[in-house]
Amino acid sequence: MRPVDLIRKKRDGAEHTREEIAALVNGYTAGSIPDYQMSAWLMAVLLKGMSRTEIALLTEIMLNSGATMDLSSIPGKKVDKHSTGGVGDKTSFILAAIVAAAGLTVPMISGRGLGHTGGTLDKLESIPGFNVNLTTDNFMSVLKSCGCALIGQTAEIAPADKKLYALRDVTGTVESPALICASIMSKKLAEGIDALVLDVKTGSGAFMKKKEDAVHLAELMVETGQQMGKRVAALITDMDQPLGRTVGNSLEILECIEIMRGEDGPLSKDLRELSVELSAWMFFLTDKCDSVDAGRNLAEEMLTSGKALDKFKQILRLQGGGDISVVDKPSRLPHAAHTTEFKSSSDGFITAMQCEQIGIASLVLGGGRSKKEDTIDHAVGLILHKKVGDAVKNGESLCTIHYNAVSDSDNRLSQALEILESSYTIAVDRPAINRPLVHQVVGGALRARGAGEISIASL
Amino acid sequence: MRPVDLIRKKRDGAEHTREEIAALVNGYTAGSIPDYQMSAWLMAVLLKGMSRTEIALLTEIMLNSGATMDLSSIPGKKVDKHSTGGVGDKTSFILAAIVAAAGLTVPMISGRGLGHTGGTLDKLESIPGFNVNLTTDNFMSVLKSCGCALIGQTAEIAPADKKLYALRDVTGTVESPALICASIMSKKLAEGIDALVLDVKTGSGAFMKKKEDAVHLAELMVETGQQMGKRVAALITDMDQPLGRTVGNSLEILECIEIMRGEDGPLSKDLRELSVELSAWMFFLTDKCDSVDAGRNLAEEMLTSGKALDKFKQILRLQGGGDISVVDKPSRLPHAAHTTEFKSSSDGFITAMQCEQIGIASLVLGGGRSKKEDTIDHAVGLILHKKVGDAVKNGESLCTIHYNAVSDSDNRLSQALEILESSYTIAVDRPAINRPLVHQVVGGALRARGAGEISIASL
Repeated sequence: MRPVDLIRKKRDGAEHTREEIAALVNGYTAGSIPDYQMSAWLMAVLLKGMSRTEIALLTEIMLNSGATMDLSSIPGKKVDKHSTGGVGDKTSFILAAIVAAAGLTVPMISGRGLGHTGGTLDKLESIPGFNVNLTTDNFMSVLKSCGCALIGQTAEIAPADKKLYALRDVTGTVESPALICASIMSKKLAEGIDALVLDVKTGSGAFMKKKEDAVHLAELMVETGQQMGKRVAALITDMDQPLGRTVGNSLEILECIEIMRGEDGPLSKDLRELSVELSAWMFFLTDKCDSVDAGRNLAEEMLTSGKALDKFKQILRLQGGGDISVVDKPSRLPHAAHTTEFKSSSDGFITAMQCEQIGIASLVLGGGRSKKEDTIDHAVGLILHKKVGDAVKNGESLCTIHYNAVSDSDNRLSQALEILESSYTIAVDRPAINRPLVHQVVGGALRARGAGEISIASL
Repeated sequence: MRPVDLIRKKRDGAEHTREEIAALVNGYTAGSIPDYQMSAWLMAVLLKGMSRTEIALLTEIMLNSGATMDLSSIPGKKVDKHSTGGVGDKTSFILAAIVAAAGLTVPMISGRGLGHTGGTLDKLESIPGFNVNLTTDNFMSVLKSCGCALIGQTAEIAPADKKLYALRDVTGTVESPALICASIMSKKLAEGIDALVLDVKTGSGAFMKKKEDAVHLAELMVETGQQMGKRVAALITDMDQPLGRTVGNSLEILECIEIMRGEDGPLSKDLRELSVELSAWMFFLTDKCDSVDAGRNLAEEMLTSGKALDKFKQILRLQGGGDISVVDKPSRLPHAAHTTEFKSSSDGFITAMQCEQIGIASLVLGGGRSKKEDTIDHAVGLILHKKVGDAVKNGESLCTIHYNAVSDSDNRLSQALEILESSYTIAVDRPAINRPLVHQVVGGALRARGAGEISIASL
C-alpha cells in the first residue's frame, strides 16, 4: 500500500477502505508519510469528496490518533456545543453556565481565533488571570467541582488533526466538508461526551456563506456523530450580521456578563435567544428535558434566577484564580485607551451588514489574528449601536470603535474605519426580509417544535 | 501573492496569470515554495485543468527556468521527434539516422525508461562504449560533424521540470495532460529546434490508453509548440501491441540495425513504416520536402541506399568511441546467458496482446526500471515470433525470452512467464478488426495525404 497509490485512488474518485485511511493518517502522524504526499491527498479529497462511510472512518481514525477523555467517574450526562465560528459569536460562555447550572457536565475544549472569527480561548483570556491551560487532572477536578471547564486543545487530543490542520492551512485544503467534519468531530468526540449540539453558521460572516453548504456540513457531522453512538443535532443559525452588540474579546465577555446579570438591551436579543436555544437542545439531547420547549424554559430559569451567573463565577474562581470581581464590576475587564464613533453619513435603514468585514475591522484593530503567530489585544473591538433593520440618521453613531495606538505611525484605526465604511448598506426603505435566527435543525428529528420568532424545521 | 492563495485559485477552477505561474514555478525551483504547497497545486491542476493559455505560459516559464541550446551557428533546419513512450518503441535510432543523412540537424535530448516503457538512453547504452553524457561543447561538435547527437537531459535544461517531475512521480500528479504537455514541450523547445514531430501513442501499451486522451494531449502540445513559433505536428500512433519484433535494450538496437541493413522481416514492418512516416513529417515540417509523400520517398531512399546506416555508424563513432563494429556484426551487442521459448497452449489466432504487460515482462527480466534507482540489464528481453492477427499452433513459440539468472533464488524468469501467460488472447477465428498504425494526425493541416496502409486524417 504505497502512499502514491492511495493518492491516485482518491484522485480518481474511488472510495478508501478503513486500512487505507488508517495507513495515510497514522503514517502521516508518525512522520513516515511526508507533507508533500499528504497535501496532494488532501487536495484530492477536497476536490473529489468522501463518502459518509469514509468520513466516519477518517473521524474515528483521527480520534484514535490520541487520547480520549474518560469522564466515567463523573456521574450524569456530558454534553458540549461546537460552533463553526462567526463574528460576535459568544454563546459558549452563557450556555456553558446555563447547562452546568442545571446539573449537566460540560467538558468544553475550544480553539483560538483565526481570520475574521473570534476564538473562545482568546475571549476567556481577556478575563484577568483566567487559565485555559489546565492539566488533565485539573480539568477533571474543575469539571467535578462545578460541572464545566473551558480549556484549549491538549497535545494528547487528536494529534493527527493538529498536524493535518496545520498542513491544510497552508495548502488551500481547509474548505473541504469531509475534512472539516472529521477535524471537528474527532476533537469533540475525544471529550467523552454523550451528546453534542452543533451551531453551524451561515451568512456573510460565516465560513459557509450559502445555507445549502452549511446544511451539507451539518448533515455530515450529525451523521458521523450518530454513527459513533452519540446524540447529535445541528442548528443552522444566522451569521449575516454579528451576534449581539459587541465584537472583540473583552467586549464580548462584557456582553455575556450583562445577559447573565439581566442587564442586556435589545441589541443583545439574538445572542440571548441563541444561547437559550442551544442550551435547550443540550438539555433535550441529554434527556434532561423531554422537549426542546421544556429545555428553553429550564434555560430561561437558569438565567433569570441568577444561577447561570453564579455558575460562571464558580468557573472563573476554579480556573486558575480568575478575577471573579469582573462579573460584579465588568468595568474591571481590560479596556482600550481610546474610543471613537463610526457615524452614518445618511438617513435611512440598515439593510445589510458585511459581517465578515466587521470581523476583519476588529481583527485589524488587534482583536484577532491574521497569522497564527499574531498576538491579541484583548481590549479592542466594536460596540454596535445599530443592526439590520434599524433606522439611522445622518451623523448618528453606527458603532463605537475601541482602539489602542501603539505608535505614531499606527494606522490600525484608519484601516478599521475604511473597512467599516464599506460594511454597512443603508437604504431609504426599511428592509422587508427578516432572516430567522435559526434557519433549520439537522438531526433533531424527535420532538422539536418552533417557538416565537425562532423557526425550526426538523429533518 | 501568497502560494496558498494561488493554490486556492486553481482549486476553485480559476485561470492563472503569467505572474502567478512564474511565482509558483520559479519559487519552487528556487526552493522558496516547499514541496507540500507545490504538490497541492499540482493536484489542483490535475483535477481542475489548465487553459491553453496557461499551458503555454507554464511551458514557457519552465523552458526559461534553464538554459536553451543556441544552434544558430549550425546552418540549415533543426528538427526532433518526441514519443510519449511505448513497448518496443525504437523509431528514434532509425529516423535520426534517416533525417541526418538527408542533411537536416537532429539535436535529440532523450530520457530513460520507467515502468513498462523503455528509454532511448538505456537502449543506446547497450551499445558498448556509447556515451550519452556529452558536454554542451561536445554535443555541438557532434551535431556539426554529423547532423545528429543523442544525449540525456543536462542539469542546465529546464531544471523546473526536473524538480517538478520528481514531485509529480510520488504525488500521483503525473497524469495531467497540461503538466505532461509543459514537461515535454519545455524540454524539447530548449533544444533550439525549428520543427518537432510528436509520436503520441494510444492503446494497451501506451500511457494514454484511450484515443481521445491521446488526441487531447497531442492538441495541447501542437498548439503550445505553434504558439511558441515552431512547426509542430503530432501523429497518434498505435501501441496496442509492441512495435517491431523485439522488446529489451540491446535486442531493440539489433532490430534497428537490421532495418538499416535491409535485413528486416515481416514482424518489423510496423517499426520500419512508422520510422519512415515520422521521418517524412520531419522532412515536411522543415520544408525539406514539399509534401509528406515526398518525405516518405526521401526517407525510403536514405534507408535503401545505406546512407542511414552510414549515418548511424558515424553517430556511434563520434559519441564517445562507441563500438561501430556492432553495426556490421550485431552479434557483438550484449546478449543474455539463457533463452527459452514461451509457447502457445492452443491452436488459433492471436486476437490481442496486453502490450503494457509485455513491457512489464521485459522489465521484470531486468530490462527496465520499476524505481528510478534500479539498474538495467541491457541484454535481456523478448523476441516476438507472432503478433496480432497471426495464426499459431499449440506448442509453437510465441516469443523467445532472453534472460540472465543472477542467483539460485532468482525468480525473474518465472515472473516473466507468469505475466506472459496472461498477455496473449488466442481465439479460433482470425480477428476482423485491424488497427491502423497511424490513427490520426494532429496539426498537420497542410498537404498531408494517406499512403498505402497508413491512414492519415489531417485535422
